[in-house]
Amino acid sequence: MSKNSLKFEAEKENCVEIICIGTELLLGNIVNTNAHWLANELAELGLTHYRQTVIGDNRLRLQNLIKEVAQRSKILITTGGLGPTNDDITTEAIASAFKSPLKLREEIWEDIQAKLSLSEHPVALNNRKQALFPIDAQILPNPLGTAPGMIWKPENAENGLTILTFPGVPSELKQMWFETAVPWLKKYGGSQNCFFSKVLRVTGMPESNVAEKLSDLLENQNPTIAPYASLGEIKLRLTVNALSHKEANNLLKPLETEIRHRIGENCYGENNQNLSSVVLDLLRRRGETLVAAESCTGGRLGAFLTSEPGSSDVFLGGVIVYSNHLKQKLLDIPHELLEAHGAVSKEVAEEMAKNVREKLQATWSIAISGLAGPGGGTTLKSVGLVHIAIAGPGRNKSIQKNFSKHKGRVDIQKLSVLCGLNQLRLLLLAQS
Amino acid sequence: MSKNSLKFEAEKENCVEIICIGTELLLGNIVNTNAHWLANELAELGLTHYRQTVIGDNRLRLQNLIKEVAQRSKILITTGGLGPTNDDITTEAIASAFKSPLKLREEIWEDIQAKLSLSEHPVALNNRKQALFPIDAQILPNPLGTAPGMIWKPENAENGLTILTFPGVPSELKQMWFETAVPWLKKYGGSQNCFFSKVLRVTGMPESNVAEKLSDLLENQNPTIAPYASLGEIKLRLTVNALSHKEANNLLKPLETEIRHRIGENCYGENNQNLSSVVLDLLRRRGETLVAAESCTGGRLGAFLTSEPGSSDVFLGGVIVYSNHLKQKLLDIPHELLEAHGAVSKEVAEEMAKNVREKLQATWSIAISGLAGPGGGTTLKSVGLVHIAIAGPGRNKSIQKNFSKHKGRVDIQKLSVLCGLNQLRLLLLAQS
Repeated sequence: MSKNSLKFEAEKENCVEIICIGTELLLGNIVNTNAHWLANELAELGLTHYRQTVIGDNRLRLQNLIKEVAQRSKILITTGGLGPTNDDITTEAIASAFKSPLKLREEIWEDIQAKLSLSEHPVALNNRKQALFPIDAQILPNPLGTAPGMIWKPENAENGLTILTFPGVPSELKQMWFETAVPWLKKYGGSQNCFFSKVLRVTGMPESNVAEKLSDLLENQNPTIAPYASLGEIKLRLTVNALSHKEANNLLKPLETEIRHRIGENCYGENNQNLSSVVLDLLRRRGETLVAAESCTGGRLGAFLTSEPGSSDVFLGGVIVYSNHLKQKLLDIPHELLEAHGAVSKEVAEEMAKNVREKLQATWSIAISGLAGPGGGTTLKSVGLVHIAIAGPGRNKSIQKNFSKHKGRVDIQKLSVLCGLNQLRLLLLAQS
Repeated sequence: MSKNSLKFEAEKENCVEIICIGTELLLGNIVNTNAHWLANELAELGLTHYRQTVIGDNRLRLQNLIKEVAQRSKILITTGGLGPTNDDITTEAIASAFKSPLKLREEIWEDIQAKLSLSEHPVALNNRKQALFPIDAQILPNPLGTAPGMIWKPENAENGLTILTFPGVPSELKQMWFETAVPWLKKYGGSQNCFFSKVLRVTGMPESNVAEKLSDLLENQNPTIAPYASLGEIKLRLTVNALSHKEANNLLKPLETEIRHRIGENCYGENNQNLSSVVLDLLRRRGETLVAAESCTGGRLGAFLTSEPGSSDVFLGGVIVYSNHLKQKLLDIPHELLEAHGAVSKEVAEEMAKNVREKLQATWSIAISGLAGPGGGTTLKSVGLVHIAIAGPGRNKSIQKNFSKHKGRVDIQKLSVLCGLNQLRLLLLAQS
């Protein structure tokens, strides 16, 4: 028996499938963010996600698919198709796959009527179908909408399948997931062991380099490390199976320490942090402030910083000096400097950083000037060339980046913003 | 026979399925953007997307899934698993599902070696497996990477299934799709008819309102209209089946005219346009310029405008006046005005728009001041309150929006940006 089929047998125990129901998904009208979110949650819970299917709002097809799933998996999670319209067929299709009748739950119907009477939508008789469930199904309450879901283990499901249904609206799905499904799934897991995970975030280093530095650790079994690269960063997800939070921490800690030791200060944060939140936190703790002077990024650095709640106590604002005229007007960049070196130059970026910091009276400043393309490249300065400068108390710094022009305009802008924040972060760390 | 099952029978003719292969998808490490992109492409081609499945890098499971698909669909499109590592099992699993041997294509292997010798990656013997294909498979060339795909109709597939394989890297998938797969799929379609589609974009109107105005048209069969709502806009996709481009246009034109008549100027653009590109185009044609003064949006308006290639001839730049101090410093907003009305007020927004336009010498300006939350709300001014002001030659305008605080910080910022651009657009239309 191969390693693969052994693994397959072992996994059968707690195999989970996801079905996302909605013709709009098959037509490519929307991105299936629910599937991604749920997959991530299942990984956190340590449940094996075996297969994920998208299917249209079609009773017969869904019914057939559910019968297939019943033969191979233990838990089925569905999203979508719980609304009041004719297209919403999830509960009916599931019930008919197991030849089970639906019954009106009076208390749910009353709750739906009460919720609708508070909203601007009139109560329609159609909504009544949202209160129909198999007799022995447990309700999954929906605090944010009218459509509740269910947790149902059909009596005549061959393999002991349990089905959890959720609406397709992401906010409703998420709240229901955390409030009712997660406790149920943890209990279901049976074993006293739980999965705990932690994400370490790395920037300023190519993926191959990270993989090389950690190559032996990537073979680890408990905790495991899964690397994932996205624009400008690599995430390392550490997952551990343990009896308690304390045991999990004891197992994770040495591995985390080892990774941080090998990666060094390129490991910039963990879990839900990002470069904005990390830099804002560093400055906040020092009681310092930040301003920006943006040319090719056109406001993206400011937008990224102000996406963070509470950024206003650190980030004061800045200038978007997209045109040369505004570079002179708002930042007093001398005409001669622009003529001599061009707007995309170390000299101009450094002058932008120095002047914006002085004029707007902040502790630190970041200035970015570059060629985001697609037009504007020359033989001497090609698309992707970006100069980034930092000015601060007693310490200035500038860096030249040559991003690939194949990355495209918006990715070059995003990478410039990340690089600017990371340069400031490294400078702050060197000072502390 | 019900309408549904009739439809099901009719569709069997050209049913397409997608399988995305990759354990990283099941672990929730990445969003399945390939599936979304392909679904959209299939809709454009008028092919029926029947089912979409995500499965891990597991030979046996993939093999079983392919056997299932062969029983119910005519075309299978796979993404992922064409790389050189042990985890890349797509071609092998497909071949073994139909008990077909793999053979080395010498010319492909030479091409892979040539490509790798130009890159920084060493040629590994592992790469050789990327040149293995079933004997009668047609190669789908990959101009951007080493892994080609294939178009293969296995002799012993029960139902006449044809399989098209693509790598998981989106840029490679897309180029291969357009260069080889689309021509093949169009020919495969058999009928001389083609599908043509056009998207109309609507803003400043709730979805229910759009649906009400178009309710009878939504029943149309050829062209069809499919509405889809996203943050701040509704897209209407018009799809027509016709013999030629000319016939398609003749069929689409009257419907488009009728929709535009009913929706009015809330229909702001079509296809790949967005509010940035539309406003930039309007101003460019008039030879006019734009600047921005952003408080709660922190640079997001500038970032959205400068995402567009060529925005620099219209958008000069702006100021991010996140702190009150910078509102005074950069825009001379009088301290008394801030004291009397608060930073989030019609008066301050109007003064910001007026002053940024004058100081930065542009034809038009947009100013935004609001409470994006989550903190900072009061009984008088709650989170989601945003004041937007436009200043221009002989015409000023301001508007108050009360976005729901449940939308969250970033969505409130995004909606404010869209609303600001739309207000300017309406003003420009009123003048022309």
